[in-house]
Amino acid sequence: MGLYPEIIEKLIEKLKKLPGIGPKSAERIVYYLIQSDENEVISLGEAITSLKKQVKLCKKCFNFAEKDLCNICLDEKRESIICIVEEVKDLISIEKTNFKGRYHVLWGRISMLDNVTPEQIKIPQLIERIKNEKIEEIIIATNPTVEGENTAIYISEILKKMGIKHSRIAVGLPIGSELEYIDSQTLKKAIEGRREL
Amino acid sequence: MGLYPEIIEKLIEKLKKLPGIGPKSAERIVYYLIQSDENEVISLGEAITSLKKQVKLCKKCFNFAEKDLCNICLDEKRESIICIVEEVKDLISIEKTNFKGRYHVLWGRISMLDNVTPEQIKIPQLIERIKNEKIEEIIIATNPTVEGENTAIYISEILKKMGIKHSRIAVGLPIGSELEYIDSQTLKKAIEGRREL
Repeated sequence: MGLYPEIIEKLIEKLKKLPGIGPKSAERIVYYLIQSDENEVISLGEAITSLKKQVKLCKKCFNFAEKDLCNICLDEKRESIICIVEEVKDLISIEKTNFKGRYHVLWGRISMLDNVTPEQIKIPQLIERIKNEKIEEIIIATNPTVEGENTAIYISEILKKMGIKHSRIAVGLPIGSELEYIDSQTLKKAIEGRREL
Repeated sequence: MGLYPEIIEKLIEKLKKLPGIGPKSAERIVYYLIQSDENEVISLGEAITSLKKQVKLCKKCFNFAEKDLCNICLDEKRESIICIVEEVKDLISIEKTNFKGRYHVLWGRISMLDNVTPEQIKIPQLIERIKNEKIEEIIIATNPTVEGENTAIYISEILKKMGIKHSRIAVGLPIGSELEYIDSQTLKKAIEGRREL
């Protein structure tokens, strides 16, 4: 027998599955909800219930979308430069830099370890898209990790064969960092990637 | 303009209000939900929506209840010893010790600092209850903090006047602790509260 009424026990079980929420936080959230205004609790519940119905993936770039296409793909002022990212959160980070191009979200990276093949992420859709769209340049902005690099190399090979101009975001020292504390891999890449002044 | 579709922005706003969830965790939870099975997400949403409708407070002891009375108050095998606690989570902790009595949840503690008077917590209801119920003993199990102690003293005065047998849970060394690391207040109380062997 649970120590709480069944609905509370069930809710705690469900909350515990969410990332970053342990049994204690789940309990604390339930206490908080029970003491909150009923309308607020209902509106939180409904927002969650309708989430998957209302949020789709953009048919072109696989960003989140409320319609068939996302707001960025619908925006005619955007340039025909496509930035390839691993996840929507990377897209959000790049949007914050005022980048005015478009995107292609891979929803992952090629990984031997996790058995992720190019077909399991949105690479076939990328190739299809390039065939149909007029694209000036493609910026490959997968993460500078081993898997992100490998994915970038894989995509680059395809783009080379297709004769599409493409680039890789720069690896180097972060603004405000100090050489003393930078790992030697990054420093090595920063020296390799030096630019004439 | 938000960087996410409106429903996601709204859900992040709502999640951020929950205890222990910051902006980053709220985002992570939304990502997790979007990638989860739709039925699971809906059932989480519905559990939250119906929480306040399905969970009431027991009319007798103010524990959580699905009906007018909670499972503990409905259990006829329970002894007529009432344990007074500050919160339902304290009741849960005591239940885990296999305590076989009943409870009275105060939903708070008397506090000068937070302007909480005895009338704002379930003390009037406690007095009413004592008048109507046959009670063998009352154990005051508010926390051994300044406010918990004050609340205990306040309740004790009332119970004395009413001629009801009552006790306070013991303060002392936790099992498995080492004297070396115990604060001197606790140690002092443990010596004061020594028992003959």
